[in-house]
Amino acid sequence: MQENLIVGRNAVTEALKAGRSISKIFIAQGSEGSIKKILALAKEAGIFFEFTNSAKLDKLFDGRHQGVIAVAAPVAYASIEEILAVAESRNEPPFIILLDELEDPHNFGAILRTADAAGVHGVIIPKRRSVSLNSTVAKISAGAVEYVKVAQVVNVAQTLDKLHELDLKIVGSDMDAEENFFQADLTGGIVLIIGNEGKGMRRLTREKCDVLVKIPMAGKINSLNASAAAAVLMYEIFRQRI
Amino acid sequence: MQENLIVGRNAVTEALKAGRSISKIFIAQGSEGSIKKILALAKEAGIFFEFTNSAKLDKLFDGRHQGVIAVAAPVAYASIEEILAVAESRNEPPFIILLDELEDPHNFGAILRTADAAGVHGVIIPKRRSVSLNSTVAKISAGAVEYVKVAQVVNVAQTLDKLHELDLKIVGSDMDAEENFFQADLTGGIVLIIGNEGKGMRRLTREKCDVLVKIPMAGKINSLNASAAAAVLMYEIFRQRI
Repeated sequence: MQENLIVGRNAVTEALKAGRSISKIFIAQGSEGSIKKILALAKEAGIFFEFTNSAKLDKLFDGRHQGVIAVAAPVAYASIEEILAVAESRNEPPFIILLDELEDPHNFGAILRTADAAGVHGVIIPKRRSVSLNSTVAKISAGAVEYVKVAQVVNVAQTLDKLHELDLKIVGSDMDAEENFFQADLTGGIVLIIGNEGKGMRRLTREKCDVLVKIPMAGKINSLNASAAAAVLMYEIFRQRI
Repeated sequence: MQENLIVGRNAVTEALKAGRSISKIFIAQGSEGSIKKILALAKEAGIFFEFTNSAKLDKLFDGRHQGVIAVAAPVAYASIEEILAVAESRNEPPFIILLDELEDPHNFGAILRTADAAGVHGVIIPKRRSVSLNSTVAKISAGAVEYVKVAQVVNVAQTLDKLHELDLKIVGSDMDAEENFFQADLTGGIVLIIGNEGKGMRRLTREKCDVLVKIPMAGKINSLNASAAAAVLMYEIFRQRI
């Protein structure tokens, strides 16, 4: 799988709308519905497209492609400074997500999509032992990857120290925290940490947290899916900003 | 894919803990970690298990199985009366989710997992044009399928009429609603409707809603993933109950 494929109708539509540099779009013969909009956008932008059989698309991407795949320049990683600049340009206190060794591209994509909706200025991921930006992430993000800046860092602990010095509040979630997430003060500049799917936050990351909050659990299963937990927490932070 | 397979470590562990009727467990040779706990639970329950090579598991289930697959009696659907009885036994106003023609088993599984955590008493799905309970749903639910009752109904509109007559509030989300979800009164007995991934709620379903709420969106993408939206709304209802 090429890293620079944009797969699926939403993802390709958003990439076109965002003016992403696309070299070619493959469209399955006989596709209908929202494909028409994609064709119109592609024509408007003067982007080359080719009707082909579905088997060729299957070969390009091993998964659901909904009849459309675009070949594009890879999404570039941003710097933390660029993320902070987005917050400044919107005149808002920074709202950053840090994914602490998240592994699943579906979770990463889902988190990017919710992050766009909840007004997050950027997402930080570690360079090692982390999911990275790829076609699956982009597709699941429904195109949000075009709008939410993603920065890669070598050292998470040092990054959190730096952000803490800039007066950002480091917020993590923990089953054993005393305060429910909706009772905590989550106003101001925030870095929200989402831990690994199985292991949660690393000890060293947890020690950097200024605030630990709990998502209360009423049932028998003792954890939420990473992207569901992220959605609940992001929207609480967004709610406290409105 | 057989409908009665339980796939993955969390799902099999929860099925064993819930005392689900399991005829056999296949375990990949050389598996470590949480497999030990599964073995201990299986031995305790007197359930037959077999060490096999990973290729056999791959044949049984086309996806990530984490080295363990159990063959079980299918999860039975519940009735709406049974869901209401769960609420009564907990002495809580009913909290029900209705999935209006949801299609994606990943979304269904994720919603079941969050529903367990947020204290939901049961989930209703239509018999036609809807995802149904299968192994993928069960696996993604991380075992929540064992604890959250699921009822199938033939006619969604009639079901909502009946629940409305029982004084349950029918709540739907809509981009064009005036009230933000966290400003609405979501106390009391509730049926929360989650619409189809692409098309949202059907017109007829929307007309049955007593309350329409909006999830505010700050970004460029104009919708949330169904399971992220469900998580945000379920936790708001849960919050208003605490």
